[in-house]
Amino acid sequence: MLCVMSKEMREQDETTDAVRVVAIPDSFKGSASAIEVAEAMADGAREAYADRGVAVSVHTLPFADGGEGTLDALLGAWGTKALTVDTTDALGRPTRARYGVSADGRTGVVEAAEANGLPGVADVPLQARTASSRGVGPLVSALLDQGVEEILLCIGGSASTDGGTGMLSALGVRFLDSEGSELPDGGGELTNLASLDLSGLDQRARSVRWRIACDVTNPLVGERGAAAVFGPQKGASPEDVRVLDAGLARLADVLAEATGQDLREVEGMGAAGGIPVTMSALLGAELVPGSRMVAEVLDADRLLGEADLVLTGEGRFDSQSLGGKVVDAVRRLTPEHVPVVVIAGSVSVTAEELRRSGVTAAFSIARGPRTLEEIREETLPEITSTAYQCCRLLTHPALPSTVQPVPGTH
Amino acid sequence: MLCVMSKEMREQDETTDAVRVVAIPDSFKGSASAIEVAEAMADGAREAYADRGVAVSVHTLPFADGGEGTLDALLGAWGTKALTVDTTDALGRPTRARYGVSADGRTGVVEAAEANGLPGVADVPLQARTASSRGVGPLVSALLDQGVEEILLCIGGSASTDGGTGMLSALGVRFLDSEGSELPDGGGELTNLASLDLSGLDQRARSVRWRIACDVTNPLVGERGAAAVFGPQKGASPEDVRVLDAGLARLADVLAEATGQDLREVEGMGAAGGIPVTMSALLGAELVPGSRMVAEVLDADRLLGEADLVLTGEGRFDSQSLGGKVVDAVRRLTPEHVPVVVIAGSVSVTAEELRRSGVTAAFSIARGPRTLEEIREETLPEITSTAYQCCRLLTHPALPSTVQPVPGTH
Repeated sequence: MLCVMSKEMREQDETTDAVRVVAIPDSFKGSASAIEVAEAMADGAREAYADRGVAVSVHTLPFADGGEGTLDALLGAWGTKALTVDTTDALGRPTRARYGVSADGRTGVVEAAEANGLPGVADVPLQARTASSRGVGPLVSALLDQGVEEILLCIGGSASTDGGTGMLSALGVRFLDSEGSELPDGGGELTNLASLDLSGLDQRARSVRWRIACDVTNPLVGERGAAAVFGPQKGASPEDVRVLDAGLARLADVLAEATGQDLREVEGMGAAGGIPVTMSALLGAELVPGSRMVAEVLDADRLLGEADLVLTGEGRFDSQSLGGKVVDAVRRLTPEHVPVVVIAGSVSVTAEELRRSGVTAAFSIARGPRTLEEIREETLPEITSTAYQCCRLLTHPALPSTVQPVPGTH
Repeated sequence: MLCVMSKEMREQDETTDAVRVVAIPDSFKGSASAIEVAEAMADGAREAYADRGVAVSVHTLPFADGGEGTLDALLGAWGTKALTVDTTDALGRPTRARYGVSADGRTGVVEAAEANGLPGVADVPLQARTASSRGVGPLVSALLDQGVEEILLCIGGSASTDGGTGMLSALGVRFLDSEGSELPDGGGELTNLASLDLSGLDQRARSVRWRIACDVTNPLVGERGAAAVFGPQKGASPEDVRVLDAGLARLADVLAEATGQDLREVEGMGAAGGIPVTMSALLGAELVPGSRMVAEVLDADRLLGEADLVLTGEGRFDSQSLGGKVVDAVRRLTPEHVPVVVIAGSVSVTAEELRRSGVTAAFSIARGPRTLEEIREETLPEITSTAYQCCRLLTHPALPSTVQPVPGTH
């Protein structure tokens, strides 16, 4: 029903007086990828500006917050295709996992959960003590083989609580017991950890820049630690939690001995079963908020800084969205005077939350009574339609008393 | 969640530079009256303008298209209460029916269906031949007793196909057979009509101005006539349709003999079982499009002509809405450069229909997956929220290249 216009990605109209619209959404999980959503928004915006006879240049920039969908968003933004590698899942069973490399070959991205994620082991009972991050190793090795300078590691959704020992083992580190034997995989064995042997560590893993997308602040151990807080959803019984927590504490001891630095109380080390602690201690990995990491990779800062209008969105826009997720990041990176409009499958923020967030307006794509399934079937055309309607309002000739062209950048 | 502000009706802020918003919706049938909807829209608009620090005066004007809800809309606009009278339903059973009088006492309004409507006889099998408009008579008599100068008659939803003979009988006209006996009630008897006796007609009914809200163009008889087109939904079998059509033709003959004017081919005479034909022939009633009638009574023309922004809406905004209903009328009465925003329970017009209609944008109040029932439970707060969001976009400091203050009226 809406005319289909150019779908070129990141189309840039260099006409200097064109209105600059940036469509920078998250994915609508289960319905549409971030890039599809961005293109759908762009179609609606272009049509509305065409109605007004106003020149417009629309940038589509699929965004993500470092969680599920980040790999796809970066691939979409880079215009590169997913690569795959043979590896193992959290229980050591063969699987294939995807990873990505930027168009210039300098940056690689891994979603650890492609290998060690909970969905991959959903077919069997959860095994909190033996689940391992080992399968992430081959993804990293593949990137190192490609010669990347930086690796972005997204760690959400893991099934393991092994402090990243599985992954580091795959990269050549040996985690040894008091007899000098290598420990079996899984966090349940770490209480027996006595020493490390770093002699076999792939040196390329130490020379690349590592950034880990991390939005949790949990420390490695204790009441707020990886085992206590996230263990139960990975199948850990109270006794498993106790053993896993003791194992991670032992790992912290051994890492502190080896490096002279005790990271167990550092915020974020408890993410993804403790993966950050070995990555930080042994590879110098830096933890960064996921949306900031993605924004930097995409140069979103610059694009949003030059925007006249920003369209963003996600499947569910609720009060959680305003705490570090895509919409929040987009609003923070966009100059205050530039409108940011949210288009979502469902919207459940209050007017007060909206006002505080700085978001200009938020609309659902539902056009009446609909089931979730019905909304999903119509996601892309309804995103286009909603973007069109919003842009019609935003581009309406200014009302009296509101004609206040904003000074400064635009 | 939204702060509740002044609910004064038709509040008028005389500050000359305040933005003038008119909230002029239809009812959301089954959910909220037009006046409730208008107030809810006004709350959202006031809050959005308050956010911007822009002075605003909001007029709330409940609107209607001459169909169901017109009585309530006019009562809401006039600020008067419904009056009631004892009368009979379409099958002659006792009932009470409502009517209204303007604050100045000069104009009365009747929804005929309050007396002769289908809902009132839904408890028994439909009786197309005997259903009568007689019960409308006492409503008219009550208005005449009050001394009104004009009567607005809304005729939609009738159960009768009697050419208005029942209603006119109640006002003193005698419809006689060839033996001079008065006919029994119901369109099924009109084939026996031989003459009229107007001597008993309440003369006040001839001296008031009559306007009938009518949006159908069907003639009295024939394939597109009252019996053929509307008879079946009133329970008429094919044989009933034949008898009723023949009766209405006979009525047209007798009226033509009495008045020298044959109205059977005139557009609209087939509305509501033919009520307009006797009203026009014997009382000089004028047929007018319902929304135009209501607009004139409410002085909507003037208010919309002075508006800077118009909010309207209805329960279902679809392609039918663009053919003479409230939204269409509001758009036509509003100067072209003034934005008209539709807020509805469900929206099913295409972008192309929207563009052709001249409506600026149309949004559903659904904020995600919802059943009709769920939407209905939240109708008023979600109307407020949607109006708030729309006004946030409309009042956003103008974007570059779209800052074009409209010359002329505002």
